[in-house]
Amino acid sequence: MTDSKKQPGSSEKLWGGRFAEKTAASVEDFTASIQYDSRLYKYDIAGSRAHAAMLASQGILSRDELEAIDSGLVEIGREIEAGTFRFKAELEDIHMNIEKALVDRIGPAGAKLHSGRSRNDQIALDFKLYLRDQCDLLMELLKGVNRGFVRLARGYLGAVMPGYTHMQRAQPVLVSHHMLAYFEMFSRDHSRLEDCRRRLNLSPLGCAAMAGTGLPIDREQVAENLGFDGVTANSMDSSGDRDFAIEFTSCCAMIQLHLSRLSEELVLWSSQEFSFVEISDKFCTGSSIMPQKKNPDIPELIRGKSGRVVGSLMSLLTLVKGLPLTYNRDLQEDKEPVFDVVDTVSASLSIMAELLENLEFNTATMEEATKTGFITATDLADYLVLKDVPFREAHGIVGRAVAYCLDKGCELEDLSVDELTRFSDVIAKDVFEVLSVRGSVDSRISTGGTARVRVEEAVAQAEKQLGIAQ
Amino acid sequence: MTDSKKQPGSSEKLWGGRFAEKTAASVEDFTASIQYDSRLYKYDIAGSRAHAAMLASQGILSRDELEAIDSGLVEIGREIEAGTFRFKAELEDIHMNIEKALVDRIGPAGAKLHSGRSRNDQIALDFKLYLRDQCDLLMELLKGVNRGFVRLARGYLGAVMPGYTHMQRAQPVLVSHHMLAYFEMFSRDHSRLEDCRRRLNLSPLGCAAMAGTGLPIDREQVAENLGFDGVTANSMDSSGDRDFAIEFTSCCAMIQLHLSRLSEELVLWSSQEFSFVEISDKFCTGSSIMPQKKNPDIPELIRGKSGRVVGSLMSLLTLVKGLPLTYNRDLQEDKEPVFDVVDTVSASLSIMAELLENLEFNTATMEEATKTGFITATDLADYLVLKDVPFREAHGIVGRAVAYCLDKGCELEDLSVDELTRFSDVIAKDVFEVLSVRGSVDSRISTGGTARVRVEEAVAQAEKQLGIAQ
Amino acid sequence: MTDSKKQPGSSEKLWGGRFAEKTAASVEDFTASIQYDSRLYKYDIAGSRAHAAMLASQGILSRDELEAIDSGLVEIGREIEAGTFRFKAELEDIHMNIEKALVDRIGPAGAKLHSGRSRNDQIALDFKLYLRDQCDLLMELLKGVNRGFVRLARGYLGAVMPGYTHMQRAQPVLVSHHMLAYFEMFSRDHSRLEDCRRRLNLSPLGCAAMAGTGLPIDREQVAENLGFDGVTANSMDSSGDRDFAIEFTSCCAMIQLHLSRLSEELVLWSSQEFSFVEISDKFCTGSSIMPQKKNPDIPELIRGKSGRVVGSLMSLLTLVKGLPLTYNRDLQEDKEPVFDVVDTVSASLSIMAELLENLEFNTATMEEATKTGFITATDLADYLVLKDVPFREAHGIVGRAVAYCLDKGCELEDLSVDELTRFSDVIAKDVFEVLSVRGSVDSRISTGGTARVRVEEAVAQAEKQLGIAQ
Amino acid sequence: MTDSKKQPGSSEKLWGGRFAEKTAASVEDFTASIQYDSRLYKYDIAGSRAHAAMLASQGILSRDELEAIDSGLVEIGREIEAGTFRFKAELEDIHMNIEKALVDRIGPAGAKLHSGRSRNDQIALDFKLYLRDQCDLLMELLKGVNRGFVRLARGYLGAVMPGYTHMQRAQPVLVSHHMLAYFEMFSRDHSRLEDCRRRLNLSPLGCAAMAGTGLPIDREQVAENLGFDGVTANSMDSSGDRDFAIEFTSCCAMIQLHLSRLSEELVLWSSQEFSFVEISDKFCTGSSIMPQKKNPDIPELIRGKSGRVVGSLMSLLTLVKGLPLTYNRDLQEDKEPVFDVVDTVSASLSIMAELLENLEFNTATMEEATKTGFITATDLADYLVLKDVPFREAHGIVGRAVAYCLDKGCELEDLSVDELTRFSDVIAKDVFEVLSVRGSVDSRISTGGTARVRVEEAVAQAEKQLGIAQ
Repeated sequence: MTDSKKQPGSSEKLWGGRFAEKTAASVEDFTASIQYDSRLYKYDIAGSRAHAAMLASQGILSRDELEAIDSGLVEIGREIEAGTFRFKAELEDIHMNIEKALVDRIGPAGAKLHSGRSRNDQIALDFKLYLRDQCDLLMELLKGVNRGFVRLARGYLGAVMPGYTHMQRAQPVLVSHHMLAYFEMFSRDHSRLEDCRRRLNLSPLGCAAMAGTGLPIDREQVAENLGFDGVTANSMDSSGDRDFAIEFTSCCAMIQLHLSRLSEELVLWSSQEFSFVEISDKFCTGSSIMPQKKNPDIPELIRGKSGRVVGSLMSLLTLVKGLPLTYNRDLQEDKEPVFDVVDTVSASLSIMAELLENLEFNTATMEEATKTGFITATDLADYLVLKDVPFREAHGIVGRAVAYCLDKGCELEDLSVDELTRFSDVIAKDVFEVLSVRGSVDSRISTGGTARVRVEEAVAQAEKQLGIAQ
Repeated sequence: MTDSKKQPGSSEKLWGGRFAEKTAASVEDFTASIQYDSRLYKYDIAGSRAHAAMLASQGILSRDELEAIDSGLVEIGREIEAGTFRFKAELEDIHMNIEKALVDRIGPAGAKLHSGRSRNDQIALDFKLYLRDQCDLLMELLKGVNRGFVRLARGYLGAVMPGYTHMQRAQPVLVSHHMLAYFEMFSRDHSRLEDCRRRLNLSPLGCAAMAGTGLPIDREQVAENLGFDGVTANSMDSSGDRDFAIEFTSCCAMIQLHLSRLSEELVLWSSQEFSFVEISDKFCTGSSIMPQKKNPDIPELIRGKSGRVVGSLMSLLTLVKGLPLTYNRDLQEDKEPVFDVVDTVSASLSIMAELLENLEFNTATMEEATKTGFITATDLADYLVLKDVPFREAHGIVGRAVAYCLDKGCELEDLSVDELTRFSDVIAKDVFEVLSVRGSVDSRISTGGTARVRVEEAVAQAEKQLGIAQ
Repeated sequence: MTDSKKQPGSSEKLWGGRFAEKTAASVEDFTASIQYDSRLYKYDIAGSRAHAAMLASQGILSRDELEAIDSGLVEIGREIEAGTFRFKAELEDIHMNIEKALVDRIGPAGAKLHSGRSRNDQIALDFKLYLRDQCDLLMELLKGVNRGFVRLARGYLGAVMPGYTHMQRAQPVLVSHHMLAYFEMFSRDHSRLEDCRRRLNLSPLGCAAMAGTGLPIDREQVAENLGFDGVTANSMDSSGDRDFAIEFTSCCAMIQLHLSRLSEELVLWSSQEFSFVEISDKFCTGSSIMPQKKNPDIPELIRGKSGRVVGSLMSLLTLVKGLPLTYNRDLQEDKEPVFDVVDTVSASLSIMAELLENLEFNTATMEEATKTGFITATDLADYLVLKDVPFREAHGIVGRAVAYCLDKGCELEDLSVDELTRFSDVIAKDVFEVLSVRGSVDSRISTGGTARVRVEEAVAQAEKQLGIAQ
Repeated sequence: MTDSKKQPGSSEKLWGGRFAEKTAASVEDFTASIQYDSRLYKYDIAGSRAHAAMLASQGILSRDELEAIDSGLVEIGREIEAGTFRFKAELEDIHMNIEKALVDRIGPAGAKLHSGRSRNDQIALDFKLYLRDQCDLLMELLKGVNRGFVRLARGYLGAVMPGYTHMQRAQPVLVSHHMLAYFEMFSRDHSRLEDCRRRLNLSPLGCAAMAGTGLPIDREQVAENLGFDGVTANSMDSSGDRDFAIEFTSCCAMIQLHLSRLSEELVLWSSQEFSFVEISDKFCTGSSIMPQKKNPDIPELIRGKSGRVVGSLMSLLTLVKGLPLTYNRDLQEDKEPVFDVVDTVSASLSIMAELLENLEFNTATMEEATKTGFITATDLADYLVLKDVPFREAHGIVGRAVAYCLDKGCELEDLSVDELTRFSDVIAKDVFEVLSVRGSVDSRISTGGTARVRVEEAVAQAEKQLGIAQ
């Protein structure tokens, strides 16, 4: 089953010294990552240049060698950017593709670059640099979506709509208040990404395979050069650590789930039954069979994409389950789910920000919807409380009044004072103020409440936070 | 925020009649599926041809129209095959790309093809046809892996190794018996795919958007033409049903998890500590930093890939959660996870089958490992049971004998009869037969047990099942 | 760190012979499963009785011993049933609790019961017997829900409602047709459970720890006695196999996701915006603060519970990832997720069946909703097709007519023939037949379509399948 | 299907005013949460007391009423603590059980307590208070585990073992270095929980149902009273927000996965093949059938429990997918997964901390294991680099030397200088220093490396961080 005559070193792989047989083509295909990790080339080159600069400072490379490496890497970077660089699957990954190209171009100096590092710390470095950028990108995109909410909140100030619990009309709220609920949700997402970015911003380079190195390297210099806050503390941990990728993906899952909630509302509001919102034609698509259809595809797709982000998180969690320290090849499977998450969440945030600019609320319909469903019943209960009826008793009184209306087929406002006093004799004419939708909304002045005065403050505060001038 | 002057029908989309604005480019990008669903082209064309044939039988198309459609579709198929067909993102998906190309080529006849169907039933059809083929493919690959186990089981008949529970040496078993455990696991996977295939093999075509159609179509004819066992029973169900994709993915998750268990064992067995197995050089790779390394990358990657298959399943489950009937655009997100699962599982099974041909058991090392760890202690207990010692009592006797050996630093076999009788006076010289590894193995003749006679039967049975002649 | 003086066998555990130290109390707490696996007592006792009967047939137990064991087990079963049996955490699990109680009561005969088996095959047996029953239970409950759909489908025959795609009104359908879509979905669930039950119905008992046994047992007799279709084929596989639990849980996840889709619709239909359905007061609850609220809690909770079932599936998949053969203690974690799934899905199906009896459709509202949204636009396109307009062209014509109506603020039916002929001169007076909702519904006579004639057949067919007489 | 005669208000529910029919018993069973949310009683009472104190400050309650409420709640708390309080399923949840008991005891004053709040903000409050405590608890437990690693790192300073990548011996490391890798992992977990705690520490109370309230409450006072850093900013967001529970569960999933990696190593190290570690008898259990077995159950179970924590995370993610704002009853399903996660992770951390005190490393075996596997091959390559051989070339030289040794059946150290110089003529006698295991370890002085000097610093730093005096 094995070759009769071994030829040590017959492999052309950069690591092939001890191997007697060439890697099978099917194995090269199965193990190669270059088809997706080429995406990391910028980070790989930046990392290698910082590493080389340090090796030169430490006397491991001469100045000439450093210059050769530097200009070689810059050139390779340019070619990749331009699409003229030829990646080879048999060179496995982005690291080997670049290193081999470098050696081919500049000779022995290139062969010195890998001193004091391993692909284990190199990929951890590339991945962290990449994710640091993605944190920044997503934070920007979150702000973009939030600008959309704030713009709508400002633009529709004063418009009312039913607030729902259990999808039942509950209490009237301002449309702007509803928009700002999303502002809060996406602001928390921003905050989580900040923490994630801070925690990942420690350089693993120089941990080498997993034990550190005996060559006189200076990890701190490389870290500083690359904008890290410091270096990781334990080489074995660094070699097999993917916490940062999982935490990043967790943050993204939350973003996409927030988007799924918003999308659900947009889909519902676009239905004929709600008709709360009009999404412009250019943000909808039609049906191949039903000529009248105008479908809210964008929010539907965003909602559906929550599945893939959650799935990617599950992939990563399953991946690391039960892995012994330190690096195991399984970990190569960390990148595709993360890349997919980045693509999905950034595209979803971008298009959602655009969509928010392409929708209009049907304020008349929304206001009409507040007129039924006994939406100010809580206000009547609070009215009774302020007249010293214990809340529980007040709740029961209003409940019976509602049941009376249901039988009669009318709303609370339609009852006369006489009818109302049958339920409680503390009710007087002033009750009709609290039964009005506008009165209800403006009464809710508790911090975070939907009263216009509160919402105006909240809009101003959000604008300030986003740097939007008024 | 909307155009001042609407031009009905200004869109060039096939569904654009009612739309006043062109779809935004960002929306086209975000909603297009052609970049991945082009994979379904063969099925889309086969489905369209069967549909057209039926329309002709029913008099909705003339014979000439049918011929034009048929040859147009065949030509388009050839171009896609050859890589010369130009897919357009603005045409969204494989259906529209092909239909538009057809209309461009053959004119009005092409525009009649979509009579009595919708993209909703069309994509369900394509996807089912595709998955039916993938079931067949995976069943073949499962057999390939199983042939590997059976070959190894046959090849190593007689070789012993420790069987483990809790990763502790438990009882000696035949290597062949261990291999056949995997045969059973992957045979169950095969059986699940058969059920999945049977359940999905009902044609949805003709359910149209979701209510059926008023055109005089013949669903049964199309179904028969395409090799289905029948047609689906309810058009609304068919429009939004993705059960078949989820079930298929569940089956695949189980396969990949089985592979992860096998891979875990191969990784362990390749370690210096176990050294039970030698994977040939061409199925391993080296390290960029450590020149001595030979890593079991293939099983590591396969183990890691269980994450992505599980993740894809979770994607699909999350996707359909809470979706109202019938078709929602979210469902477009069903394909990429399934495609990834197909690619992952088929590649893993293929390479595993190859790997099984490129590994050798170190039978001497395995046998050596059975000599320690009191691996025949259960046999001693059974020996006592056959001498009428109640099992629980026998268990305690042997436990104490083991503790005695631990203190003395020897194995049970190393004790003299005198020493053994101190633990139970029914022990006699014949005890040494049961304490031997070979004796232990061959004693386990219960159905499904590891005795050589049982295992030989099992190998023969498996060979018969796989159609392997001996 | 260890005891200075070891006392072999000082533990009181049934397996304690070799142990020098007593198990730590915290370890007993952490490892005990009796708090949840006591649920399996009936199956454990049935399995032990079948095992004992076989041991007696094989001469390993005397008739007297068998009788003692049998009556002892029956008595223990009765006490557990009655709640008077005292489970002990230090005896770990249901097997040891029952075996110890048996030995305490009947002495040495009890100590013989565990001959030729291990807890590994015993728990696999108990779990399979349990799940076999749960398959039967869930299949019954699925039928119960399906009876609900069929009853509604029969009861509301003729009532129309909008069918939706993308949550947009698409085409009119019969309420009964919509109900039968769910009948199809839950029928597939039934079919999957049947397959699952068939696949798991092989007895593992007698595989012992994982290698089989040397005692002269008869696995087939036990299997037949317990209603199995046969015995498992490989002892190592049987010891660590949990495929059956995962497959069962996958089936359950699909059921709960189907329920989540139904629940979503019930929640929407209960909203003031839809008002399609009235759930009776006794199936709703109120709000602690808003006196007017009547919330559709049952469907909301069922929808939410899809999370826990999907989560349990994820638990099990993660659990087995990367486990080497055969039994590992990790597998003890298989039961709680499955128990939770059984409780969740059976409770959800039961209450949903009840709920279906406590809801009424507001048929007038539903019918009213079909009158807007250009819901018969497809019919107009099909009308043109039958007048030989190519479908694509017909689609465009109708799209433009819809755009015209949108501008004018009317429906297609409101246009005059003159207006209509501006879009296509093949349109004549007979067009108004196809533009009517009833006409549209009844035209869809393709197999599986919503025409009344098709739906009546489907109701009758479903009734027959469920054994409901008309 | 409905009652002929409605009796408004016939329900005895606290919210029953508008209901004509009593809730069905099956519905009460299905919707009740008291069986698990009673766990929150302390937080519910603390929240109610703070709310009442504020209501009194604001003049909504009199001083007497406040005192009555206060002492009533204290008494109820004591009864629950003592196990004498009777929870009722028909009162649904912990809030209603306590409020009803309060009203029964102190009359009208109790009925005033619910003024200005809803169960929606009340449960959010309780849950946040609970999770804040659990963050604190888990951070303590993480420190406990970390103390274990540091104690072992200190205790075994100087002991060497093989470091592994791909489960292959890679480079020698200090046992202490390996222990400190876990210290880093669990320190990151601590840091994530800190962030989670900070982010959740904003009070939702006073957001009421979802719109705020018109009663003159003071949310900030309640928040301060309960130790919050402030109040939430938007009432609609607060009502349906479960981000904090999901983030907490994400943090826990990472902890349990870290534990799963550690457990995997402990299981492997306990195997006869590795024999690196001895877990004391009292932390292991035996087999019911194999008398010699001593199983590492604790790490196996902990590893297995990673499934349930990941599953719970999946439950929560699925739960919120696609939920419209604000509160939906689905959200009731948020608690059981979180409770299970708290129980699982806290129990796992506790027992792991104990286990770390009950294990001993077999340092001789570990050191022995460093003697094979060419474990200092990288050192030879680095040796060549320092003699100005480009790293890639050095790597190839060593690879060929290893292949030579493999053929010859020896280690690198066993070669003579003459043999070595055949591979590179820069090799001299001083090579043997770098080929020694101790020399290799101590050479790795890069920051985070395994050199003893580095590890001693790291141990001291970790001790300082944990407040351990030396």
